[in-house]
Order: sequence, then structure tokens, then C-alpha cells
Amino acid sequence: GFEVIIVGEKLNSSIKQVEKALEIEDAAFIGDTALKQAEAGAHYLDINAGSFPEKEPDKLEWLINTVQERVSVPLVIDSPNPVALKRALKANKNGKPIVNSITGERERYGQFLPLVLEYGAGVIALCMDDGGMPETADGVVSVAEKLIKRLEKDGVALEDIYVDPAARPVGVNPQCGLLVLDAIRGIRARFPEIHIICGLSNISYGLPARRLLNRTFLTAALAAGLDCAILDPLDQKLMAALYAARALLGKDEYCVEYISKFREGFLDV
Amino acid sequence: GFEVIIVGEKLNSSIKQVEKALEIEDAAFIGDTALKQAEAGAHYLDINAGSFPEKEPDKLEWLINTVQERVSVPLVIDSPNPVALKRALKANKNGKPIVNSITGERERYGQFLPLVLEYGAGVIALCMDDGGMPETADGVVSVAEKLIKRLEKDGVALEDIYVDPAARPVGVNPQCGLLVLDAIRGIRARFPEIHIICGLSNISYGLPARRLLNRTFLTAALAAGLDCAILDPLDQKLMAALYAARALLGKDEYCVEYISKFREGFLDV
Repeated sequence: GFEVIIVGEKLNSSIKQVEKALEIEDAAFIGDTALKQAEAGAHYLDINAGSFPEKEPDKLEWLINTVQERVSVPLVIDSPNPVALKRALKANKNGKPIVNSITGERERYGQFLPLVLEYGAGVIALCMDDGGMPETADGVVSVAEKLIKRLEKDGVALEDIYVDPAARPVGVNPQCGLLVLDAIRGIRARFPEIHIICGLSNISYGLPARRLLNRTFLTAALAAGLDCAILDPLDQKLMAALYAARALLGKDEYCVEYISKFREGFLDV
Repeated sequence: GFEVIIVGEKLNSSIKQVEKALEIEDAAFIGDTALKQAEAGAHYLDINAGSFPEKEPDKLEWLINTVQERVSVPLVIDSPNPVALKRALKANKNGKPIVNSITGERERYGQFLPLVLEYGAGVIALCMDDGGMPETADGVVSVAEKLIKRLEKDGVALEDIYVDPAARPVGVNPQCGLLVLDAIRGIRARFPEIHIICGLSNISYGLPARRLLNRTFLTAALAAGLDCAILDPLDQKLMAALYAARALLGKDEYCVEYISKFREGFLDV
């Protein structure tokens, strides 16, 4: 069984405090946010400066350098901008990074693949192409299959590919949750050795009590075959659900880690 | 998609307070426990007097009469004793009951089936037979299939059958969670129209923070195809997880009920 890889989501410039910290170059806040996530169990940190489209390469580079002064966990570099991505990959010193994200879109694929190969990075493969986002679970699986085969042919190892089925809000379409769970199950059945990743917060967009939906969705997605998640590792209820799901899904032999987290007081939330 | 049927578990004599109330015939406590569960959303109440093996028929009959004085929700009659079961079915006035449970064991099947048919009851079909409890998911599905086909042939309608895959503790065998989830998925794939039911608390037996495990398992099981659960409807975190799971699994059109539960303050737990 797969372990669960945790990508901390809290260094994203769509979060107001992060945007502010990037604006005034508040290294202490950025460093603390990085450290807290690492201490809470994040295996990777997602790094995003997308709210500064004009200065993204500079801001992203500063963000990465600032994070690397405080933690050594590897980074997920989150940008649709190939110039910013290249600067970020050059600045990266925290071990093998992951590029977030390539898609099947001709232009994006052509710009991002050479950077992934040049820097020996892992890559998140978002299930969309020039036809847009697929409308059915089979459609997502089919786009995933094409992307995986193309990446493999182009020299990316299967274990470096993190397929993202691109979850959409259940508040907009109530079938979106089932769609993404079916897609995860379909991708896992065809590619037992691949990583499947998901950002948890899209699913709950526009609804109240989002954290409850996010942690509930995490459990269902892990049961369907997800093995990586972009999430808030400082959300204790979410992490408690994650430890419980690992125990229930046979990813925590004899529940040793579950029991240890209980003794440390992490599960009474 | 199936709705989720909630069976309240709190009138079970294995719970010390219930045993005490049965001993001293504390009708107020029993009635209050029935009422609270009904108000919290239970569609059925499980009724068990099994800790009084000598006096089970009397105790069960008293329990049912006492419950029926306070609530009109239908009952799940939980007894391995055919004499107690017959008395209970005679005493039942709360609409169509469910018998908990028949198995593929020759003796039990032979004793329980006539009562199920005579009283037009639904029936929980526990996945075990004279060979014991199956050790694999395929084994559970195979026992389920045989039981369903036999019940159908003997005159029980498919919609009156509630298959119970018999969840076992992950604390004993870490693969038990995956086994029961795979079994649920297998049964659901073969019998889209059947009910699949599970008691939540077995899975967490012997582990700490059991409620966390129970609600996490509920989510995974619903995603796999469960549509009924025997649970504690007074556990607010469990109910919040259930509302969230319904919203995520397309069982709550436009999340109307989820939003309404949020407004009533049920999701901030």
C-alpha cells in the first residue's frame, strides 16, 4: 500500500497574509509558516506567488530562498509561468522538487516538459488538455492515461508523475465528488505505481464548513486510491482524519502511528 | 443514488446504562434514549436485550413496548434467539421492522426465515455461514451473493434485504478495513438495488479515539456503496461527517441539507 504524501498548502499567495508577506518581504512570517508546516508533518511545501503576475519570477525566487533558509523539506513549485518556473527551479536547493503543474495542453506541455527533464523534477499532471476539463470520470481517466503515457515516453519516470484529477466544487455540481472519486479509482486501477494527488479545497468552494467537507473528502479520496494531498497540515482535525484513514486503510501497520498520535494528544480534536 | 438510512444503536443492552435500565425497568431512561435518537435523525432504532440470555424474550418485549410508548420510528430487532425474536415481532407496532440478523448458517437460517416471512419484516443478512466468517473480500461477496439469492428465492424482496459485510477490528488485523470496503464495493457492483448495512463500532474495537475511527470509516464505507449504518445519532461529529459525506457523494442535491444543517449549527463540531 501507498503511504500518504502531505504537501503543505499554506505558502500560496492567494492567501491574504501570504500575499501581504510577499509584498513587504516579511521573511519571518514566511519562514515561520514553512517551519510550522514541516513540523506538522508536511513532506513537501507548495510554493505559489501567482497573485503577482507582473513580478512572479522575482517573488517566487524570493519566496523559495526565504523558505530554504528555514526548512529543508522539498518544494512543489506552483506556477503556470515558465519564466517563473525556471527561476524557481534554479533557486531550488531543497532536494528533488515537483512542478505544479503540466497539462495536456499543447503550449503548456511544450514549455514545461523541458524544464521538468532539465531539473530532474517530479511533475503534477493536471487532467485537462486543449479540449478543456473532461466532464465525466471516464473522460478524466482517459486524459490521465494519455498524459501519463506521453510523459513516460518523453522520459519522465512513472514514480515522478503525480496525476491530479482536478476536483471541482460540489456546490456547483453535486456529481463532482463522485466524478473525482470514480476518476481516482479508475486511474489507480490502471496505474498502480503512479502517484495521485489532489488539492482538497476546490471540492468545498462556495460552501460553508469547508474544513469539514475537505477532511471528509480526504478520507473518501484516500479510500479510492489517492496517495498525496495538498492540504493544510496545521488543520488538526484534518490531520486526525488522515491518521484515522491511514489506520483504516491498512497504511499504518497495527495502527502504531495512530496510537502514538493519540498518546501525543493529536486525535482529541 | 441511495439515501443514507440511520439505525440508532443506543438501545443495546451491551451498554451498561441500558442494561441497568432493563434490570430495574427504568421506562423513562429507555423512552428518553429512544426519543433523543429519533429527534437526532434515526430512521430506525436497534433494540437489543442480549445481556439477559435467560430472560431475553421478556426483556426484549418490555423494551419494545416501552420504546413504542414514546416514538413511532420502526425497529431493528437485534437478537440471535428465535423465541425472543418471535415475541418481539408480535409486540412490534411501529411499522415494518427489520430482523437483525439472519446468516447463511443452516440452523439460524431455518429458524429465522419463517419469522421474517410471517411478519413481513426486512432482514439483515450477516455475511457468514457454517464455514464461519470469510477471510477475504471475495469470500464476503460470495457469501453475500449466496445469501441474497437464497432469500430472494425464499420470498424476501431485494429491497427488504440489508447485507452486513461483518466488519472486524483493524486493531486486530490492519487489512480488515480494506477488506470490508472492497466487500461493500463488490456487493454494490453486483446488487445495485440492495441495502448494505454496517455497524460502525466493530472496526475500532480495542483502539483509542474510537469515535474518530468510526466517523472516518463511515465516510469511506458510504463512498464504497454502504447506504445504511448502525450508529450513535447523538454523536454530533459523526452526524456532521455523515452530512458532509452525503453532500460529497451526490446524495444531497445542491447541498441543500448540508447548508441547512450548517445554519442550524450542527456542523461546527
